[in-house]
Amino acid sequence: MTDTLPAAAAVTTAPHPRLSLNQATIKYADLATALRLTADAGVSSIGLWREPVAEVGLETAVRLVADSGLRVSSLCRGGFITVPEGPARRAAIDDNRRAINETAALGAPTLVLVAGGLPAGSRDLIGARDRVRDAIGELAGEARAAGVTLAIEPLHPMYASDRAVISTLGQALDIAEQFGADVVGVVVDTFHVWWDPALAAQVARAGAGGYIASYQVCDWATPLPTDVLLARHYPGDGVIDFAAVSALVQAAGYTGDVEVEIFNQAIWDTPAADVVARTVASFTATVAPHL
Amino acid sequence: MTDTLPAAAAVTTAPHPRLSLNQATIKYADLATALRLTADAGVSSIGLWREPVAEVGLETAVRLVADSGLRVSSLCRGGFITVPEGPARRAAIDDNRRAINETAALGAPTLVLVAGGLPAGSRDLIGARDRVRDAIGELAGEARAAGVTLAIEPLHPMYASDRAVISTLGQALDIAEQFGADVVGVVVDTFHVWWDPALAAQVARAGAGGYIASYQVCDWATPLPTDVLLARHYPGDGVIDFAAVSALVQAAGYTGDVEVEIFNQAIWDTPAADVVARTVASFTATVAPHL
Repeated sequence: MTDTLPAAAAVTTAPHPRLSLNQATIKYADLATALRLTADAGVSSIGLWREPVAEVGLETAVRLVADSGLRVSSLCRGGFITVPEGPARRAAIDDNRRAINETAALGAPTLVLVAGGLPAGSRDLIGARDRVRDAIGELAGEARAAGVTLAIEPLHPMYASDRAVISTLGQALDIAEQFGADVVGVVVDTFHVWWDPALAAQVARAGAGGYIASYQVCDWATPLPTDVLLARHYPGDGVIDFAAVSALVQAAGYTGDVEVEIFNQAIWDTPAADVVARTVASFTATVAPHL
Repeated sequence: MTDTLPAAAAVTTAPHPRLSLNQATIKYADLATALRLTADAGVSSIGLWREPVAEVGLETAVRLVADSGLRVSSLCRGGFITVPEGPARRAAIDDNRRAINETAALGAPTLVLVAGGLPAGSRDLIGARDRVRDAIGELAGEARAAGVTLAIEPLHPMYASDRAVISTLGQALDIAEQFGADVVGVVVDTFHVWWDPALAAQVARAGAGGYIASYQVCDWATPLPTDVLLARHYPGDGVIDFAAVSALVQAAGYTGDVEVEIFNQAIWDTPAADVVARTVASFTATVAPHL
Protein backbone atom coordinates (compact mmCIF):
# COMPACT_ATOMS: atom_id res chain seq x y z
CA MET A 1 0.00 0.00 0.00
CA THR A 2 1.16 3.54 -0.67
CA ASP A 3 -0.28 6.89 0.27
CA THR A 4 0.77 8.53 -2.99
CA LEU A 5 -1.10 7.92 -6.20
CA PRO A 6 0.82 6.80 -9.26
CA ALA A 7 1.34 9.62 -11.77
CA ALA A 8 -1.07 8.12 -14.26
CA ALA A 9 -4.01 8.63 -11.91
CA ALA A 10 -3.50 12.37 -12.05
CA VAL A 11 -4.00 12.48 -15.81
CA THR A 12 -7.55 13.63 -16.44
CA THR A 13 -9.30 12.67 -19.63
CA ALA A 14 -10.92 15.50 -21.57
CA PRO A 15 -14.73 15.37 -21.35
CA HIS A 16 -16.46 13.56 -24.20
CA PRO A 17 -17.12 16.04 -27.04
CA ARG A 18 -20.85 15.26 -26.99
CA LEU A 19 -21.30 15.93 -23.26
CA SER A 20 -23.54 18.90 -22.54
CA LEU A 21 -24.14 20.22 -19.04
CA ASN A 22 -27.78 21.06 -18.55
CA GLN A 23 -27.86 24.22 -16.48
CA ALA A 24 -30.50 22.80 -14.11
CA THR A 25 -27.80 20.54 -12.70
CA ILE A 26 -26.17 23.66 -11.21
CA LYS A 27 -29.46 25.40 -10.59
CA TYR A 28 -28.17 28.18 -8.32
CA ALA A 29 -25.41 29.37 -10.68
CA ASP A 30 -26.26 32.45 -12.75
CA LEU A 31 -25.81 32.32 -16.51
CA ALA A 32 -22.33 33.81 -16.60
CA THR A 33 -21.13 31.44 -13.88
CA ALA A 34 -22.72 28.41 -15.52
CA LEU A 35 -21.05 29.24 -18.84
CA ARG A 36 -17.68 29.83 -17.20
CA LEU A 37 -17.75 26.63 -15.13
CA THR A 38 -18.81 24.58 -18.12
CA ALA A 39 -16.10 25.98 -20.38
CA ASP A 40 -13.46 25.75 -17.63
CA ALA A 41 -14.23 22.04 -17.25
CA GLY A 42 -13.55 21.49 -20.95
CA VAL A 43 -17.20 20.72 -21.65
CA SER A 44 -18.16 22.11 -25.04
CA SER A 45 -21.93 22.35 -24.80
CA ILE A 46 -24.55 23.57 -22.37
CA GLY A 47 -28.33 23.21 -22.09
CA LEU A 48 -29.83 26.53 -20.97
CA TRP A 49 -32.97 27.40 -19.00
CA ARG A 50 -35.15 30.39 -19.72
CA GLU A 51 -35.17 31.82 -16.18
CA PRO A 52 -31.41 32.51 -15.89
CA VAL A 53 -31.46 33.84 -19.46
CA ALA A 54 -34.29 36.21 -18.53
CA GLU A 55 -32.35 37.38 -15.46
CA VAL A 56 -29.68 39.00 -17.63
CA GLY A 57 -31.92 39.71 -20.62
CA LEU A 58 -31.83 37.92 -23.96
CA GLU A 59 -29.34 40.26 -25.66
CA THR A 60 -26.83 39.95 -22.87
CA ALA A 61 -27.38 36.20 -22.75
CA VAL A 62 -26.68 35.89 -26.47
CA ARG A 63 -23.43 37.84 -26.02
CA LEU A 64 -22.37 35.80 -22.98
CA VAL A 65 -22.99 32.57 -24.89
CA ALA A 66 -21.04 33.81 -27.90
CA ASP A 67 -18.14 34.87 -25.68
CA SER A 68 -18.13 31.47 -23.96
CA GLY A 69 -17.49 29.56 -27.17
CA LEU A 70 -19.98 26.90 -26.03
CA ARG A 71 -22.67 25.26 -28.10
CA VAL A 72 -26.19 25.53 -26.73
CA SER A 73 -27.71 22.07 -26.99
CA SER A 74 -31.24 23.07 -26.02
CA LEU A 75 -33.36 25.64 -24.25
CA CYS A 76 -35.62 24.46 -21.41
CA ARG A 77 -38.48 24.91 -21.64
CA GLY A 78 -41.74 25.57 -23.30
CA GLY A 79 -44.98 23.69 -22.96
CA PHE A 80 -47.53 23.74 -20.13
CA ILE A 81 -50.22 23.81 -22.78
CA THR A 82 -52.99 21.64 -21.38
CA VAL A 83 -55.49 24.30 -20.27
CA PRO A 84 -58.72 24.71 -22.27
CA GLU A 85 -59.30 27.68 -24.57
CA GLY A 86 -59.35 31.04 -22.85
CA PRO A 87 -56.96 33.75 -21.68
CA ALA A 88 -54.71 31.31 -19.76
CA ARG A 89 -54.28 29.19 -22.88
CA ARG A 90 -53.57 32.26 -25.04
CA ALA A 91 -50.96 33.40 -22.51
CA ALA A 92 -49.35 29.95 -22.57
CA ILE A 93 -49.22 29.89 -26.37
CA ASP A 94 -47.73 33.39 -26.43
CA ASP A 95 -45.12 32.38 -23.90
CA ASN A 96 -44.15 29.47 -26.11
CA ARG A 97 -43.79 31.87 -29.04
CA ARG A 98 -41.32 33.90 -26.99
CA ALA A 99 -39.51 30.70 -26.06
CA ILE A 100 -39.14 29.79 -29.73
CA ASN A 101 -37.61 33.18 -30.43
CA GLU A 102 -35.24 32.87 -27.47
CA THR A 103 -34.16 29.42 -28.65
CA ALA A 104 -33.33 30.75 -32.10
CA ALA A 105 -31.54 33.82 -30.73
CA LEU A 106 -29.36 31.64 -28.50
CA GLY A 107 -28.44 29.44 -31.43
CA ALA A 108 -29.97 26.33 -29.89
CA PRO A 109 -31.51 23.79 -32.25
CA THR A 110 -34.14 22.61 -29.81
CA LEU A 111 -36.79 23.95 -27.47
CA VAL A 112 -37.76 21.33 -24.88
CA LEU A 113 -41.52 21.11 -24.25
CA VAL A 114 -43.00 19.78 -21.00
CA ALA A 115 -46.67 19.21 -21.66
CA GLY A 116 -48.20 20.31 -18.37
CA GLY A 117 -50.51 18.38 -16.07
CA LEU A 118 -54.27 18.07 -15.77
CA PRO A 119 -55.90 21.48 -15.44
CA ALA A 120 -57.06 22.15 -11.85
CA GLY A 121 -60.19 20.16 -11.06
CA SER A 122 -60.11 18.21 -14.32
CA ARG A 123 -60.07 14.44 -14.75
CA ASP A 124 -60.07 14.63 -18.55
CA LEU A 125 -56.67 13.17 -19.36
CA ILE A 126 -57.50 12.49 -22.99
CA GLY A 127 -58.73 16.04 -23.51
CA ALA A 128 -55.56 17.44 -21.95
CA ARG A 129 -53.45 15.30 -24.23
CA ASP A 130 -55.40 16.46 -27.27
CA ARG A 131 -54.79 20.07 -26.29
CA VAL A 132 -51.02 19.46 -26.21
CA ARG A 133 -51.17 18.30 -29.82
CA ASP A 134 -53.38 21.25 -30.77
CA ALA A 135 -51.00 23.75 -29.18
CA ILE A 136 -48.04 22.26 -31.02
CA GLY A 137 -50.08 22.66 -34.18
CA GLU A 138 -50.44 26.36 -33.44
CA LEU A 139 -46.73 26.74 -32.78
CA ALA A 140 -45.28 24.57 -35.53
CA GLY A 141 -45.26 27.25 -38.23
CA GLU A 142 -43.32 29.70 -36.12
CA ALA A 143 -40.91 27.03 -34.97
CA ARG A 144 -40.21 26.00 -38.55
CA ALA A 145 -39.68 29.60 -39.60
CA ALA A 146 -37.25 30.08 -36.72
CA GLY A 147 -35.37 26.86 -37.45
CA VAL A 148 -36.23 25.50 -34.02
CA THR A 149 -37.29 21.91 -33.27
CA LEU A 150 -40.03 21.60 -30.68
CA ALA A 151 -38.90 18.60 -28.64
CA ILE A 152 -41.69 16.89 -26.72
CA GLU A 153 -40.32 15.43 -23.51
CA PRO A 154 -42.33 12.50 -22.17
CA LEU A 155 -42.09 12.63 -18.41
CA HIS A 156 -42.22 9.65 -16.06
CA PRO A 157 -45.84 8.56 -15.44
CA MET A 158 -45.57 9.58 -11.79
CA TYR A 159 -45.83 13.18 -13.09
CA ALA A 160 -48.84 12.53 -15.34
CA SER A 161 -51.38 14.34 -13.19
CA ASP A 162 -49.50 17.45 -12.14
CA ARG A 163 -46.70 18.04 -14.62
CA ALA A 164 -46.82 16.26 -17.95
CA VAL A 165 -49.70 14.35 -19.50
CA ILE A 166 -47.29 13.03 -22.13
CA SER A 167 -45.91 9.94 -20.40
CA THR A 168 -44.21 7.71 -22.97
CA LEU A 169 -41.92 7.99 -25.93
CA GLY A 170 -44.51 6.29 -28.14
CA GLN A 171 -47.13 8.83 -27.16
CA ALA A 172 -44.75 11.72 -27.90
CA LEU A 173 -43.96 10.20 -31.28
CA ASP A 174 -47.66 9.83 -32.07
CA ILE A 175 -47.83 13.62 -31.84
CA ALA A 176 -44.49 14.44 -33.43
CA GLU A 177 -45.22 12.32 -36.49
CA GLN A 178 -48.28 14.45 -37.22
CA PHE A 179 -45.95 17.39 -37.88
CA GLY A 180 -42.70 15.95 -39.20
CA ALA A 181 -39.18 15.73 -37.84
CA ASP A 182 -38.13 19.03 -39.36
CA VAL A 183 -40.22 20.82 -36.73
CA VAL A 184 -41.25 18.46 -33.91
CA GLY A 185 -39.07 15.91 -32.18
CA VAL A 186 -38.81 14.04 -28.90
CA VAL A 187 -36.50 14.03 -25.91
CA VAL A 188 -35.17 10.69 -24.71
CA ASP A 189 -34.44 11.22 -21.01
CA THR A 190 -33.24 8.09 -19.26
CA PHE A 191 -34.88 9.03 -15.96
CA HIS A 192 -38.28 9.27 -17.59
CA VAL A 193 -38.19 6.30 -19.97
CA TRP A 194 -35.86 3.67 -18.50
CA TRP A 195 -38.76 1.52 -17.19
CA ASP A 196 -40.71 1.46 -20.47
CA PRO A 197 -41.13 -2.09 -21.85
CA ALA A 198 -41.50 -0.50 -25.31
CA LEU A 199 -38.26 1.50 -25.00
CA ALA A 200 -36.18 -0.33 -27.58
CA ALA A 201 -38.95 -0.31 -30.18
CA GLN A 202 -39.82 3.34 -29.61
CA VAL A 203 -36.21 4.58 -29.66
CA ALA A 204 -35.74 2.73 -32.94
CA ARG A 205 -38.95 4.25 -34.30
CA ALA A 206 -37.82 7.70 -33.22
CA GLY A 207 -34.43 7.27 -34.77
CA ALA A 208 -35.74 5.90 -38.06
CA GLY A 209 -37.81 9.02 -38.53
CA GLY A 210 -35.13 11.42 -37.33
CA TYR A 211 -37.23 12.44 -34.33
CA ILE A 212 -34.63 12.23 -31.54
CA ALA A 213 -34.00 15.90 -30.79
CA SER A 214 -32.27 15.42 -27.47
CA TYR A 215 -30.77 12.66 -25.35
CA GLN A 216 -30.64 13.46 -21.64
CA VAL A 217 -29.10 11.29 -18.96
CA CYS A 218 -29.42 10.97 -15.22
CA ASP A 219 -30.10 8.03 -12.93
CA TRP A 220 -33.06 6.58 -11.00
CA ALA A 221 -32.73 5.33 -7.45
CA THR A 222 -35.13 4.50 -4.64
CA PRO A 223 -36.39 5.38 -2.14
CA LEU A 224 -37.70 8.48 -3.87
CA PRO A 225 -37.29 11.76 -1.97
CA THR A 226 -40.36 13.49 -0.49
CA ASP A 227 -40.42 15.84 -3.48
CA VAL A 228 -40.34 13.35 -6.34
CA LEU A 229 -39.28 16.11 -8.73
CA LEU A 230 -35.85 15.99 -7.12
CA ALA A 231 -35.27 12.24 -7.47
CA ARG A 232 -32.50 12.35 -10.06
CA HIS A 233 -28.94 11.19 -9.61
CA TYR A 234 -25.57 11.23 -11.34
CA PRO A 235 -25.31 8.51 -13.99
CA GLY A 236 -24.03 5.41 -12.24
CA ASP A 237 -25.60 6.18 -8.86
CA GLY A 238 -28.81 4.27 -9.58
CA VAL A 239 -30.30 1.36 -11.48
CA ILE A 240 -30.37 2.59 -15.08
CA ASP A 241 -28.34 0.58 -17.57
CA PHE A 242 -26.69 3.45 -19.49
CA ALA A 243 -24.81 1.03 -21.70
CA ALA A 244 -28.05 -0.52 -22.92
CA VAL A 245 -30.04 2.70 -23.33
CA SER A 246 -27.14 4.58 -24.93
CA ALA A 247 -26.62 1.70 -27.35
CA LEU A 248 -30.26 2.00 -28.42
CA VAL A 249 -29.93 5.74 -28.96
CA GLN A 250 -26.66 5.28 -30.87
CA ALA A 251 -28.14 2.52 -33.02
CA ALA A 252 -31.06 4.84 -33.75
CA GLY A 253 -28.60 7.25 -35.37
CA TYR A 254 -28.60 10.11 -32.88
CA THR A 255 -25.33 12.02 -33.10
CA GLY A 256 -26.15 15.17 -31.14
CA ASP A 257 -25.21 16.41 -27.70
CA VAL A 258 -25.99 14.35 -24.61
CA GLU A 259 -27.16 16.45 -21.69
CA VAL A 260 -26.73 15.61 -18.04
CA GLU A 261 -29.77 17.11 -16.33
CA ILE A 262 -30.16 16.45 -12.60
CA PHE A 263 -32.72 17.84 -10.16
CA ASN A 264 -31.48 16.91 -6.71
CA GLN A 265 -31.40 19.13 -3.64
CA ALA A 266 -28.18 17.64 -2.25
CA ILE A 267 -26.44 18.20 -5.59
CA TRP A 268 -27.81 21.75 -5.82
CA ASP A 269 -26.42 22.39 -2.33
CA THR A 270 -22.93 21.32 -3.45
CA PRO A 271 -20.51 23.97 -4.85
CA ALA A 272 -21.23 24.23 -8.58
CA ALA A 273 -17.64 23.63 -9.70
CA ASP A 274 -17.61 20.35 -7.78
CA VAL A 275 -20.89 19.36 -9.40
CA VAL A 276 -19.49 20.05 -12.85
CA ALA A 277 -16.42 17.93 -12.08
CA ARG A 278 -18.56 15.11 -10.76
CA THR A 279 -20.84 15.36 -13.79
CA VAL A 280 -17.89 15.02 -16.13
CA ALA A 281 -16.50 12.08 -14.15
CA SER A 282 -19.81 10.20 -14.02
CA PHE A 283 -20.47 10.79 -17.71
CA THR A 284 -16.94 9.68 -18.61
CA ALA A 285 -17.34 6.46 -16.64
CA THR A 286 -20.93 5.59 -17.42
CA VAL A 287 -22.15 7.09 -20.68
CA ALA A 288 -19.18 8.13 -22.82
CA PRO A 289 -17.92 4.57 -23.43
CA HIS A 290 -21.21 3.79 -25.17
CA LEU A 291 -21.28 6.79 -27.55
CA MET B 1 -82.35 25.61 7.19
CA THR B 2 -83.14 22.72 9.51
CA ASP B 3 -81.01 20.67 11.84
CA THR B 4 -82.88 17.45 11.12
CA LEU B 5 -82.32 15.55 7.90
CA PRO B 6 -85.31 14.61 5.76
CA ALA B 7 -86.25 10.94 6.08
CA ALA B 8 -85.04 10.09 2.60
CA ALA B 9 -81.45 10.95 3.47
CA ALA B 10 -81.43 8.22 6.10
CA VAL B 11 -82.22 5.53 3.54
CA THR B 12 -78.96 3.84 2.67
CA THR B 13 -78.52 2.08 -0.62
CA ALA B 14 -77.25 -1.48 -0.40
CA PRO B 15 -73.66 -1.79 -1.64
CA HIS B 16 -73.27 -2.75 -5.27
CA PRO B 17 -73.25 -6.57 -5.54
CA ARG B 18 -69.89 -6.52 -7.34
CA LEU B 19 -68.11 -4.46 -4.69
CA SER B 20 -65.34 -6.34 -2.92
CA LEU B 21 -63.40 -4.91 0.00
CA ASN B 22 -59.74 -5.68 -0.35
CA GLN B 23 -58.49 -6.44 3.13
CA ALA B 24 -55.45 -4.19 2.73
CA THR B 25 -57.81 -1.22 2.95
CA ILE B 26 -58.35 -2.11 6.63
CA LYS B 27 -54.84 -3.38 7.12
CA TYR B 28 -54.85 -3.53 10.92
CA ALA B 29 -58.03 -5.64 11.21
CA ASP B 30 -57.49 -9.35 11.77
CA LEU B 31 -59.21 -11.82 9.47
CA ALA B 32 -62.26 -12.43 11.65
CA THR B 33 -62.79 -8.71 12.11
CA ALA B 34 -62.32 -7.97 8.41
CA LEU B 35 -64.87 -10.62 7.47
CA ARG B 36 -67.37 -9.39 10.06
CA LEU B 37 -67.07 -5.71 9.12
CA THR B 38 -67.40 -6.54 5.43
CA ALA B 39 -70.49 -8.69 5.94
CA ASP B 40 -72.05 -6.23 8.39
CA ALA B 41 -71.75 -3.49 5.77
CA GLY B 42 -73.69 -5.59 3.31
CA VAL B 43 -70.67 -6.08 1.08
CA SER B 44 -70.74 -9.57 -0.40
CA SER B 45 -67.11 -10.11 -1.38
CA ILE B 46 -63.66 -9.63 0.12
CA GLY B 47 -60.12 -9.73 -1.24
CA LEU B 48 -57.84 -11.47 1.26
CA TRP B 49 -54.15 -11.19 2.03
CA ARG B 50 -51.92 -14.09 2.93
CA GLU B 51 -50.49 -12.61 6.14
CA PRO B 52 -53.78 -12.35 8.10
CA VAL B 53 -54.74 -15.77 6.76
CA ALA B 54 -51.45 -17.20 8.05
CA GLU B 55 -52.04 -15.58 11.45
CA VAL B 56 -55.00 -17.84 12.14
CA GLY B 57 -53.84 -20.75 9.98
CA LEU B 58 -55.32 -21.82 6.68
CA GLU B 59 -57.87 -24.30 8.10
CA THR B 60 -59.31 -21.77 10.48
CA ALA B 61 -59.30 -19.15 7.74
CA VAL B 62 -61.25 -21.42 5.43
CA ARG B 63 -63.85 -22.00 8.18
CA LEU B 64 -64.10 -18.29 9.01
CA VAL B 65 -64.64 -17.47 5.35
CA ALA B 66 -67.30 -20.16 4.98
CA ASP B 67 -69.08 -18.92 8.10
CA SER B 68 -69.00 -15.34 6.81
CA GLY B 69 -70.97 -16.15 3.69
CA LEU B 70 -68.66 -13.86 1.70
CA ARG B 71 -67.13 -14.55 -1.69
CA VAL B 72 -63.34 -14.29 -1.81
CA SER B 73 -62.53 -12.28 -4.92
CA SER B 74 -58.76 -12.82 -4.82
CA LEU B 75 -55.81 -13.67 -2.62
CA CYS B 76 -52.94 -11.19 -2.42
CA ARG B 77 -50.29 -12.10 -3.23
CA GLY B 78 -47.73 -14.17 -4.91
CA GLY B 79 -44.90 -13.08 -7.15
CA PHE B 80 -41.52 -11.53 -6.21
CA ILE B 81 -39.93 -13.84 -8.73
CA THR B 82 -37.20 -11.74 -10.32
CA VAL B 83 -34.12 -13.18 -8.63
CA PRO B 84 -31.73 -15.32 -10.67
CA GLU B 85 -31.54 -19.10 -10.26
CA GLY B 86 -30.41 -20.23 -6.84
CA PRO B 87 -31.82 -20.96 -3.38
CA ALA B 88 -33.64 -17.61 -3.15
CA ARG B 89 -35.42 -18.26 -6.42
CA ARG B 90 -36.34 -21.79 -5.39
CA ALA B 91 -37.73 -20.44 -2.11
CA ALA B 92 -39.78 -17.86 -4.01
CA ILE B 93 -41.19 -20.45 -6.38
CA ASP B 94 -42.07 -22.72 -3.47
CA ASP B 95 -43.79 -19.86 -1.69
CA ASN B 96 -45.88 -19.23 -4.80
CA ARG B 97 -46.84 -22.90 -4.83
CA ARG B 98 -48.12 -22.53 -1.27
CA ALA B 99 -49.98 -19.38 -2.32
CA ILE B 100 -51.71 -21.27 -5.13
CA ASN B 101 -52.86 -23.91 -2.66
CA GLU B 102 -54.10 -21.27 -0.22
CA THR B 103 -56.01 -19.54 -3.01
CA ALA B 104 -57.75 -22.76 -3.96
CA ALA B 105 -58.49 -23.66 -0.34
CA LEU B 106 -60.08 -20.27 0.27
CA GLY B 107 -62.25 -20.66 -2.79
CA ALA B 108 -60.79 -17.61 -4.51
CA PRO B 109 -60.56 -17.73 -8.31
CA THR B 110 -57.44 -15.57 -8.49
CA LEU B 111 -53.97 -15.25 -7.00
CA VAL B 112 -52.59 -11.76 -7.53
CA LEU B 113 -48.91 -11.69 -8.57
CA VAL B 114 -46.64 -8.73 -7.96
CA ALA B 115 -43.53 -9.32 -10.04
CA GLY B 116 -40.84 -8.00 -7.72
CA GLY B 117 -38.19 -5.38 -8.44
CA LEU B 118 -34.65 -5.51 -9.73
CA PRO B 119 -32.51 -7.90 -7.69
CA ALA B 120 -30.11 -6.03 -5.37
CA GLY B 121 -27.24 -4.54 -7.33
CA SER B 122 -28.71 -5.45 -10.72
CA ARG B 123 -29.46 -3.11 -13.62
CA ASP B 124 -30.71 -5.90 -15.87
CA LEU B 125 -34.37 -4.94 -16.23
CA ILE B 126 -34.93 -7.13 -19.27
CA GLY B 127 -33.45 -10.15 -17.53
CA ALA B 128 -35.65 -9.57 -14.49
CA ARG B 129 -38.71 -9.39 -16.71
CA ASP B 130 -37.75 -12.60 -18.47
CA ARG B 131 -37.44 -14.34 -15.10
CA VAL B 132 -41.00 -13.32 -14.21
CA ARG B 133 -42.25 -15.04 -17.32
CA ASP B 134 -40.10 -18.10 -16.61
CA ALA B 135 -41.40 -18.38 -13.05
CA ILE B 136 -44.99 -18.20 -14.25
CA GLY B 137 -44.11 -20.98 -16.66
CA GLU B 138 -42.96 -23.10 -13.71
CA LEU B 139 -46.14 -22.39 -11.77
CA ALA B 140 -48.74 -22.57 -14.53
CA GLY B 141 -49.29 -26.31 -14.35
CA GLU B 142 -50.00 -26.29 -10.64
CA ALA B 143 -52.25 -23.25 -10.96
CA ARG B 144 -54.26 -24.94 -13.69
CA ALA B 145 -54.59 -28.12 -11.66
CA ALA B 146 -55.78 -26.08 -8.67
CA GLY B 147 -58.25 -24.07 -10.74
CA VAL B 148 -56.48 -20.84 -9.82
CA THR B 149 -55.79 -17.97 -12.22
CA LEU B 150 -52.40 -16.34 -11.75
CA ALA B 151 -53.20 -12.65 -12.18
CA ILE B 152 -50.21 -10.52 -13.13
CA GLU B 153 -50.61 -7.05 -11.67
CA PRO B 154 -48.72 -4.38 -13.57
CA LEU B 155 -47.64 -1.78 -11.04
CA HIS B 156 -47.16 1.92 -11.70
CA PRO B 157 -43.75 2.58 -13.30
CA MET B 158 -42.60 4.45 -10.19
CA TYR B 159 -42.27 1.00 -8.59
CA ALA B 160 -40.36 -0.55 -11.50
CA SER B 161 -37.00 -0.69 -9.73
CA ASP B 162 -37.94 -1.85 -6.26
CA ARG B 163 -41.29 -3.60 -6.44
CA ALA B 164 -42.57 -4.69 -9.83
CA VAL B 165 -40.69 -4.87 -13.11
CA ILE B 166 -44.03 -5.43 -14.88
CA SER B 167 -45.17 -1.86 -15.48
CA THR B 168 -47.96 -1.84 -18.07
CA LEU B 169 -51.04 -3.79 -18.95
CA GLY B 170 -49.65 -4.50 -22.40
CA GLN B 171 -46.51 -5.99 -20.91
CA ALA B 172 -48.54 -8.18 -18.53
CA LEU B 173 -50.64 -9.37 -21.46
CA ASP B 174 -47.54 -10.19 -23.47
CA ILE B 175 -46.74 -12.71 -20.73
CA ALA B 176 -50.27 -13.91 -20.02
CA GLU B 177 -50.93 -14.68 -23.67
CA GLN B 178 -48.03 -17.12 -23.68
CA PHE B 179 -49.98 -19.31 -21.24
CA GLY B 180 -53.66 -18.76 -21.98
CA ALA B 181 -56.50 -17.12 -20.08
CA ASP B 182 -57.50 -20.35 -18.34
CA VAL B 183 -54.41 -20.06 -16.16
CA VAL B 184 -52.83 -16.59 -16.40
CA GLY B 185 -54.67 -13.26 -16.35
CA VAL B 186 -54.03 -9.64 -15.52
CA VAL B 187 -55.17 -7.20 -12.86
CA VAL B 188 -56.49 -3.84 -14.00
CA ASP B 189 -55.85 -1.52 -11.05
CA THR B 190 -56.82 2.08 -11.74
CA PHE B 191 -54.04 3.49 -9.56
CA HIS B 192 -51.39 1.69 -11.58
CA VAL B 193 -52.73 2.12 -15.12
CA TRP B 194 -54.78 5.34 -15.26
CA TRP B 195 -51.95 7.30 -16.89
CA ASP B 196 -51.27 4.79 -19.69
CA PRO B 197 -51.88 6.22 -23.17
CA ALA B 198 -52.49 2.65 -24.36
CA LEU B 199 -55.07 1.92 -21.65
CA ALA B 200 -58.16 1.72 -23.84
CA ALA B 201 -56.48 -0.52 -26.40
CA GLN B 202 -54.93 -2.81 -23.79
CA VAL B 203 -58.12 -3.19 -21.72
CA ALA B 204 -59.95 -4.10 -24.92
CA ARG B 205 -57.21 -6.59 -25.80
CA ALA B 206 -57.37 -8.10 -22.32
CA GLY B 207 -61.14 -8.38 -22.45
CA ALA B 208 -61.22 -9.91 -25.91
CA GLY B 209 -59.00 -12.74 -24.74
CA GLY B 210 -60.72 -13.18 -21.38
CA TYR B 211 -57.61 -12.10 -19.50
CA ILE B 212 -59.09 -9.62 -17.01
CA ALA B 213 -58.88 -11.57 -13.76
CA SER B 214 -59.43 -8.65 -11.42
CA TYR B 215 -60.50 -5.01 -11.52
CA GLN B 216 -59.24 -2.96 -8.57
CA VAL B 217 -60.08 0.66 -7.89
CA CYS B 218 -58.56 3.47 -5.88
CA ASP B 219 -57.60 7.01 -6.73
CA TRP B 220 -54.42 8.94 -7.55
CA ALA B 221 -53.69 12.37 -6.10
CA THR B 222 -50.62 14.55 -5.74
CA PRO B 223 -48.47 15.49 -3.97
CA LEU B 224 -47.37 11.94 -3.34
CA PRO B 225 -46.62 11.03 0.29
CA THR B 226 -43.02 10.42 1.39
CA ASP B 227 -43.63 6.67 1.13
CA VAL B 228 -45.06 6.43 -2.38
CA LEU B 229 -46.45 2.98 -1.59
CA LEU B 230 -49.10 4.70 0.51
CA ALA B 231 -50.31 7.14 -2.13
CA ARG B 232 -53.76 5.64 -2.74
CA HIS B 233 -57.08 7.30 -2.04
CA TYR B 234 -60.80 6.55 -1.96
CA PRO B 235 -62.34 6.65 -5.43
CA GLY B 236 -63.40 10.23 -6.06
CA ASP B 237 -60.67 11.83 -3.95
CA GLY B 238 -58.21 12.18 -6.82
CA VAL B 239 -57.91 12.66 -10.56
CA ILE B 240 -58.88 9.27 -11.98
CA ASP B 241 -61.91 9.24 -14.26
CA PHE B 242 -63.66 6.12 -12.90
CA ALA B 243 -66.52 6.56 -15.34
CA ALA B 244 -64.15 6.30 -18.28
CA VAL B 245 -61.97 3.47 -16.97
CA SER B 246 -64.93 1.46 -15.67
CA ALA B 247 -66.66 1.86 -19.01
CA LEU B 248 -63.59 0.37 -20.72
CA VAL B 249 -63.54 -2.59 -18.34
CA GLN B 250 -67.30 -3.13 -18.75
CA ALA B 251 -67.06 -2.92 -22.51
CA ALA B 252 -64.26 -5.49 -22.36
CA GLY B 253 -66.73 -7.91 -20.85
CA TYR B 254 -65.45 -8.18 -17.29
CA THR B 255 -68.31 -9.20 -14.97
CA GLY B 256 -66.40 -10.15 -11.81
CA ASP B 257 -65.92 -8.46 -8.47
CA VAL B 258 -64.45 -4.98 -8.24
CA GLU B 259 -62.04 -4.57 -5.34
CA VAL B 260 -61.34 -1.36 -3.49
CA GLU B 261 -57.71 -1.65 -2.40
CA ILE B 262 -56.19 1.35 -0.65
CA PHE B 263 -52.78 1.71 0.97
CA ASN B 264 -52.90 4.97 2.90
CA GLN B 265 -51.59 5.59 6.41
CA ALA B 266 -54.34 8.06 7.35
CA ILE B 267 -57.00 5.59 6.23
CA TRP B 268 -55.29 2.75 8.12
CA ASP B 269 -55.30 4.96 11.22
CA THR B 270 -59.09 5.43 10.96
CA PRO B 271 -61.42 2.95 12.76
CA ALA B 272 -61.96 0.06 10.35
CA ALA B 273 -65.78 0.21 10.47
CA ASP B 274 -65.62 3.85 9.37
CA VAL B 275 -63.27 2.91 6.54
CA VAL B 276 -65.65 0.21 5.33
CA ALA B 277 -68.55 2.69 5.37
CA ARG B 278 -66.53 5.27 3.52
CA THR B 279 -65.40 2.64 1.00
CA VAL B 280 -69.00 1.67 0.30
CA ALA B 281 -70.05 5.31 -0.04
CA SER B 282 -67.21 6.25 -2.40
CA PHE B 283 -67.77 3.15 -4.52
CA THR B 284 -71.51 3.81 -4.67
CA ALA B 285 -70.95 7.37 -5.80
CA THR B 286 -68.00 6.91 -8.12
CA VAL B 287 -67.74 3.41 -9.53
CA ALA B 288 -71.10 1.61 -9.14
CA PRO B 289 -73.00 3.85 -11.59
CA HIS B 290 -70.62 2.71 -14.35
CA LEU B 291 -70.95 -1.05 -13.78
